[in-house]
Amino acid sequence: MSKNKKIKPELAGGFRDYLPEDMIPRQSIIDKIMAVFERFGFVPLDTPGVEKGEILTGGDENFSNQIFQVKKSGSEKDKLALRFDLTIPLARVIAQYPDKIKKPFKRYQIGKAWRGERQQAGRYKEFLQVDADIIGSDSMIADAEIISLVYETMSNLGIENFLIRVNNRKILNGLPKYANFPKEKINPVLRVIDKLDKQGWETVQKELSDKNGLNKKQIEKIKDFLNLKNSSRKKVLSDILKLMKSIPIAEEGIGELEFISRSLGNLGVPEDKWIIDPSVVRGLGYYTGPVFETILTDFPEIGSVFAGGRYDNLVERFSNDSVSAVGISAGVDRLFTAMEKLGKIEKNKLISKVMILNFDKNCIDYIQKIAARLRKEGIPTEIYLDNKKSLKAQVINALETSRVIIIAGESEKKKETVKIKDVVLKKESEINYLKVVGEIKKIIYK
Amino acid sequence: MSKNKKIKPELAGGFRDYLPEDMIPRQSIIDKIMAVFERFGFVPLDTPGVEKGEILTGGDENFSNQIFQVKKSGSEKDKLALRFDLTIPLARVIAQYPDKIKKPFKRYQIGKAWRGERQQAGRYKEFLQVDADIIGSDSMIADAEIISLVYETMSNLGIENFLIRVNNRKILNGLPKYANFPKEKINPVLRVIDKLDKQGWETVQKELSDKNGLNKKQIEKIKDFLNLKNSSRKKVLSDILKLMKSIPIAEEGIGELEFISRSLGNLGVPEDKWIIDPSVVRGLGYYTGPVFETILTDFPEIGSVFAGGRYDNLVERFSNDSVSAVGISAGVDRLFTAMEKLGKIEKNKLISKVMILNFDKNCIDYIQKIAARLRKEGIPTEIYLDNKKSLKAQVINALETSRVIIIAGESEKKKETVKIKDVVLKKESEINYLKVVGEIKKIIYK
Repeated sequence: MSKNKKIKPELAGGFRDYLPEDMIPRQSIIDKIMAVFERFGFVPLDTPGVEKGEILTGGDENFSNQIFQVKKSGSEKDKLALRFDLTIPLARVIAQYPDKIKKPFKRYQIGKAWRGERQQAGRYKEFLQVDADIIGSDSMIADAEIISLVYETMSNLGIENFLIRVNNRKILNGLPKYANFPKEKINPVLRVIDKLDKQGWETVQKELSDKNGLNKKQIEKIKDFLNLKNSSRKKVLSDILKLMKSIPIAEEGIGELEFISRSLGNLGVPEDKWIIDPSVVRGLGYYTGPVFETILTDFPEIGSVFAGGRYDNLVERFSNDSVSAVGISAGVDRLFTAMEKLGKIEKNKLISKVMILNFDKNCIDYIQKIAARLRKEGIPTEIYLDNKKSLKAQVINALETSRVIIIAGESEKKKETVKIKDVVLKKESEINYLKVVGEIKKIIYK
Repeated sequence: MSKNKKIKPELAGGFRDYLPEDMIPRQSIIDKIMAVFERFGFVPLDTPGVEKGEILTGGDENFSNQIFQVKKSGSEKDKLALRFDLTIPLARVIAQYPDKIKKPFKRYQIGKAWRGERQQAGRYKEFLQVDADIIGSDSMIADAEIISLVYETMSNLGIENFLIRVNNRKILNGLPKYANFPKEKINPVLRVIDKLDKQGWETVQKELSDKNGLNKKQIEKIKDFLNLKNSSRKKVLSDILKLMKSIPIAEEGIGELEFISRSLGNLGVPEDKWIIDPSVVRGLGYYTGPVFETILTDFPEIGSVFAGGRYDNLVERFSNDSVSAVGISAGVDRLFTAMEKLGKIEKNKLISKVMILNFDKNCIDYIQKIAARLRKEGIPTEIYLDNKKSLKAQVINALETSRVIIIAGESEKKKETVKIKDVVLKKESEINYLKVVGEIKKIIYK
């Protein structure tokens, strides 16, 4: 085999590995997220990465180039594809098991998803997603729960400078009446407004005129509306109400946000951690009520780290039942990138553990028995595996990765002792091997 | 949207969902496995599910129908595919980051893999795999560590009746000389021997004769060798040595198993939990030394749950460096199926948590504040979200899923009290709302 042509060891473009020094803090991010989700009573779900294509596209025969298709060589009955989010598989599950799943259903899911085009920093074609959704409640208490969940999760991750921006699609749906443009133009107009953050008002203004054919007066009214984002949090709702008075759908949306606002106070979300921002759209087509996104105020360019909203119609793709739903998604890779920038990722190679050096062939029995003794007590313990290295070289390597080093060679074996090196305190002692568990517990758990 | 044709909510064939009642115990299986792996000093790695096809096939242009290909509609530069195990991606990583990864490298990985054909019970086309490997040590201490890891993991999962079957490919490689057949026939012969467990000696004998063209005398010798599996564990190595005396490769293999045998004793693996079984082959081509598999003695038909071995040549596919490696894999789905059969899966819907009922619109502020108070102390707490249900209906539902029920309606709010129902002890009390945290901690943590 070694004489064959070598395959170049490389990743497919746009994909990444997590080596242990990144994987250990990533795992800790996931653990912290899960802890908060479970504290709110969410239960875990897992679904396959591969779904039938029509489930993902909603029956559209053409796959967008965002979607990775999956096929075996040879025939394939179903057109299969890799999921691009965790929300559509959830909607499938809700429709597929109506008897098994009792609603309201609060589920969280951590899993990978795939998208064809993800060229931004911190974005990959395969990404780890965490979602939490509440299915089957149309109460705004649920929306408030989700926003509170985001606040608590960000806090548990140790991130201080963030802002949850909240809006309501029902208010945005009042725009045609308010600004006096045809109802059919609402989606193209929203798509343009969605660009405000990244591309600024000049671009938005130009596109509303050139692409959407809005006139100066209409655009001026939209500008007045969007400018409300600069009001204080308390003022913004009453300001919107002034502008949109007697537009029923918008009034309904304002009422919902008033309820959410009061609830967030009750739930202990600090006032400076969230705002009502009339410019928040959230691109996806399926939102029907409140929408929210979370930005890192130190690095707004990273984009949102937790985003979501209410989507009361998605399950209808699969079922005649009308099912209300509200939820949130975050990309763990983007969170990781953000936390790295914030200096919140400790790439700590020193894992609290015991390394037993292995430099004398006649002492292998002895050190294996010591390893078994320590592991039995739950103490993470390694035997040095490259026994061709000298004692000195082993010590040098072990100093980098271990909390405690154990030396047990011929002379120690004869005396039934071991030498223990406390790497941090730089202390060494020699003790009877029967005392090794107690002695090491003192060092690593104190 | 609701008027459109509905998409039937179903999984692609051969895939499965894990609803919460299955996902909660599956997560607990994973946690127990990880705990043991970390106790042995293994560190986590994550790699993408999607790899370049040539990485997976070793440069073979033709994908077998075991492999799922991945492509976007439109052009695709690289041929991409879903990984079918975690071992080949590990070999890629080892070759790709020679400077970042210090050897010996002990990594574990938990991730999904995909195979085209998996029609057996407990087998799916997408499956969750856990692997642990030691890279860069040719010492048999490493092989013993891996077998000990399997024993400790199975024990930590609460599985009692299992057997780790150990063999050495070096002994099997002595077969041509021992049974006097041409060296070139070794792989086809091993492929036939591999069927002994499932199809019995009659089939093996027939195929050795018909397919491999072995004569009666040659087959008789192979039979003598395979029959040694019935000797006592202590006797089997000396019996193999008698048969294979003066075949250097086999003697080397026997020496390795002797070392492993002694090591397993030192490491505390009980004698009745493992055997040396000369019929164990492990199909995959890349094994070069000791091989092992773990069967459930109550359900041998499930097949092996942890299997692996030494594969010293795999990294050569990607690199000129020679890198030794030994490791183990388990399918979590198969372990789950096995543990379900063993009655070790608790489908417990009662998650220790607090449910605050929500039946009075005027008390929403009050119950949200109580929820925030409990969650702040880390107590898993839910607010009942279907507030259209009557108090009675809410109680009935909450009894099924909650450890504690809190009732806080108008009369309690006035008195600044809450009613607490201990669902298990069937006790109810009414306390001041400021005492709710302490009272509930007493119930759920006692």
